[in-house]
Amino acid sequence: MTFSFKILHKSKKSKARVGKIYTPHGIVDTPNFVGVATNGTIKALDNKILEDLGMQLIFCNTYHLMIHPGEDIIAKAGGLHKFINRNLPIITDSGGFQVFSLLYGTVFDELKKKGKKRSDKLVLKIEEEGVLFRSYRDGKKILLTPEKSIQIQKALHSDIIIPLDELPPYYLKEKNLKKSFERTHRWEKRSLDEHIKNKKGQAIYGVIHGGIDKELRKKSCNILQDFPFDGFAIGGSIGKNKKEMVDIVKHTVKYLPEEYPKHLLGIGDSVSFEKIIPLGIDTFDSSYPTKAARHALLFKKEKNIKISKKKYSYIYKPIDERCNCFTCKNYTLAYMHHLFKTRELVFYSLATIHNIFFMINLMKEYREKILKGIF
Amino acid sequence: MTFSFKILHKSKKSKARVGKIYTPHGIVDTPNFVGVATNGTIKALDNKILEDLGMQLIFCNTYHLMIHPGEDIIAKAGGLHKFINRNLPIITDSGGFQVFSLLYGTVFDELKKKGKKRSDKLVLKIEEEGVLFRSYRDGKKILLTPEKSIQIQKALHSDIIIPLDELPPYYLKEKNLKKSFERTHRWEKRSLDEHIKNKKGQAIYGVIHGGIDKELRKKSCNILQDFPFDGFAIGGSIGKNKKEMVDIVKHTVKYLPEEYPKHLLGIGDSVSFEKIIPLGIDTFDSSYPTKAARHALLFKKEKNIKISKKKYSYIYKPIDERCNCFTCKNYTLAYMHHLFKTRELVFYSLATIHNIFFMINLMKEYREKILKGIF
Repeated sequence: MTFSFKILHKSKKSKARVGKIYTPHGIVDTPNFVGVATNGTIKALDNKILEDLGMQLIFCNTYHLMIHPGEDIIAKAGGLHKFINRNLPIITDSGGFQVFSLLYGTVFDELKKKGKKRSDKLVLKIEEEGVLFRSYRDGKKILLTPEKSIQIQKALHSDIIIPLDELPPYYLKEKNLKKSFERTHRWEKRSLDEHIKNKKGQAIYGVIHGGIDKELRKKSCNILQDFPFDGFAIGGSIGKNKKEMVDIVKHTVKYLPEEYPKHLLGIGDSVSFEKIIPLGIDTFDSSYPTKAARHALLFKKEKNIKISKKKYSYIYKPIDERCNCFTCKNYTLAYMHHLFKTRELVFYSLATIHNIFFMINLMKEYREKILKGIF
Repeated sequence: MTFSFKILHKSKKSKARVGKIYTPHGIVDTPNFVGVATNGTIKALDNKILEDLGMQLIFCNTYHLMIHPGEDIIAKAGGLHKFINRNLPIITDSGGFQVFSLLYGTVFDELKKKGKKRSDKLVLKIEEEGVLFRSYRDGKKILLTPEKSIQIQKALHSDIIIPLDELPPYYLKEKNLKKSFERTHRWEKRSLDEHIKNKKGQAIYGVIHGGIDKELRKKSCNILQDFPFDGFAIGGSIGKNKKEMVDIVKHTVKYLPEEYPKHLLGIGDSVSFEKIIPLGIDTFDSSYPTKAARHALLFKKEKNIKISKKKYSYIYKPIDERCNCFTCKNYTLAYMHHLFKTRELVFYSLATIHNIFFMINLMKEYREKILKGIF
C-alpha cells in the first residue's frame, strides 16, 4: 500500500474531520493518538500486546535509535518493523527534537529557565551543515545533518519520516528566531531532496515552524506547502499554555491545504484534544499517557485516579467498570494500589495497558462523534 | 478438591518419583518448580500470563503480604487468590524466613559474615512467645508468634501453609543451634495446633530443621512425622555448597515417610535439580530464575545466555530456536540485547517469561524421563 490520505467525513460544526491514512504497513484511522515508543517499544509494553490493543501508529525516536542500537543493526534486521517485530505503521522523527532538548532541556525546563542553555556540553555546534553533538552513551561526536537524518530514517524504513529541523526555545530573541527559522526551512528542503532521491515507499511530513510569531507561522506554511511533502506536522514552540497553543494551532492550520494529514507534535492530553480536534488536526503523539501510568495516574473519564492514594487499598473494583481493557477485566484498584506501593514491575505494564486502551477508545469516540455530526 | 498426594510412578534407578498434589485450586504435577511471587506476583509478570504459562504453584511471602497490603485487606477481598486473581494453587511461608533474614542477611551475606548479625535494628527480640520486629515500611513493632503466622495464612487462605520456624544461621554455635532447634519444633507444634482448630481446607507442611548436623536432622524428621502434617519441607541451613546440600538432603529424606510430598526450600537451579530430584524431592521454590532474567541471564540448555554481551546485538535469532515461549516466538537476541541496554521495562517481562517457561518445561521433561525409566 502506498501512502495516501483520504478524508471520509467533515464536520459541519468545525474543521474536525474523520479520515484514513494509508501506509505500507496498514491504515491509521484519524483523528488518532500516536503512542511514543522511544527505543522501539512503548515503555512497559511489548509490541504484540500493543498491536492487540489496536495502537495503529507509534512514534519512534531517531535520536535514541541511532545511538542504540544504531541504524546499521536495524537495517541489517530488515528495518525497524522487523527489528522490533511490529506489523503496523511507524512514524520516526528526525532526531532534531532530542538534540535540541539536550541544549535547552524539556519544554518545561526551558520555560522555567527562560531559554538559558543547559550546562551540559552534549551539543557542540549548530551550523549550516547540521548539528554536532556527543552521544550520551559513549561521548562519541556525531554530526547530524539533514541528509544524515534522512539516511538514518531510510535505514529504519519507517512509514512516515520527518525532516531535520531546529527547535528554537520559546524565549529565543526575535533576531535569532528568524535566523533559526530560515535555517530550519533550508534544512527541511535538504531533507526532502535527500528523501526524493530514494523514496522507498516512505512518506515525509513537513514541519511548520515560527514559534509563537504568527507572521512566521504563516510564512512557514506558505514555504512548505510549495514543496512536495505528504503531510504536515506542527512543531517548534507552540506557546507556554493551552490558550496560546490553541491560538497558534488555529492560526497555523488556516494556511495549510485541507486535504493533507496534519500532525501536532508532542501533545496528548484529553483537554487539548477537545480543543484541537475541531481545528482539523488528525494525529497527536505524546508520551504523557504512558508516563502518567508509570506515575500512578490512571485515566478515567470523570476524573483520573491517583492509584497511590490510600483510599484505593480496599476497593475491590476495577479502575473503570465500563472499561474492557485487560487490566480492568482482571485486576482491582486494591491490587493495583498494592502493586504500585510495593513497586512491582508489573504495575507499570498493567497501568500502561489501561491508559493506552483509554486513549485508543477516546479517539474512536471522537471519530464516531464527528461521523454522527455531534462534534 | 481436598489436599492429597498421589505417587504415580517410582523410578527403579533412584528415589525419584512422579506424582500429583491435589489442592483446592487444582493439581500440581511433581516434580515441579514453584515460582516465587513475593508480593503476590512473580516479578514483571501478571498472574494471568503466569497461568497461561502453566505455572501450577506459586510461593507467596507472608512477611511481605502482612506488611503490605496487610492480611485484613486480603481477607476482605476473599483471600489471596481473589486479591491477586489467581485460580491455581498457592503456597505461603510463615514469615519466619524473612524475619530471620533481616537479622542475618541473605544466606550469601550470612556465609560471608560468618553468622555475625546485621547492623540494622529491625529484629528486636526472639523469645519463646515469638519474634518481635519492626516493619520496614513504617517502623511499627510487630510480634510474630506461631499462632499469629497461622492466623495470617488463614486470612490469606493459601492452599499450602508453613508453620513458624526459626532460621538459625549456618555458623551458629552448637549450643545455640540446639536451643533454636528445640524452640523451632515447639513453634511448629503450636502452629499445627492453631491450624487444626480451623483447617479451612488448607494443608500444612512441617519444616525439617537441624542445619548441617545430621543427628539433629534425623531427630527433626522423627519429631515432625509424628505430627499430622500433610507434607514436609526441608528448611534451615542446608550447607555452604552444593556437595554439602546434596549430602544433607540425602541424609534427611531417609528419615521421612515416602508417601508424603517433600519440598526443598529456596533451591531452583538446574544443577541442583539433577542431583536432588533423584533423592525424592517433589517441589522446589526459588527466585533464582526470575532474578537471573532481570540480570540479563537467559536460560538455555547447553549454556545460558548473558544477553548484555555485545555479540548478541546483531544476532537476529530467538534466544532458543527450539523454545516455544512468547518471547522466543516473537523477539530476537538482537532486540532483547537492545531492550536490556536501553533499560526498557518490557525487557524484564520478556526475559522472565522465557526463564519461567524454561523451568516449567525442564520439570515436564524430568517427569517424562522418570516415567520412561531413563532417570
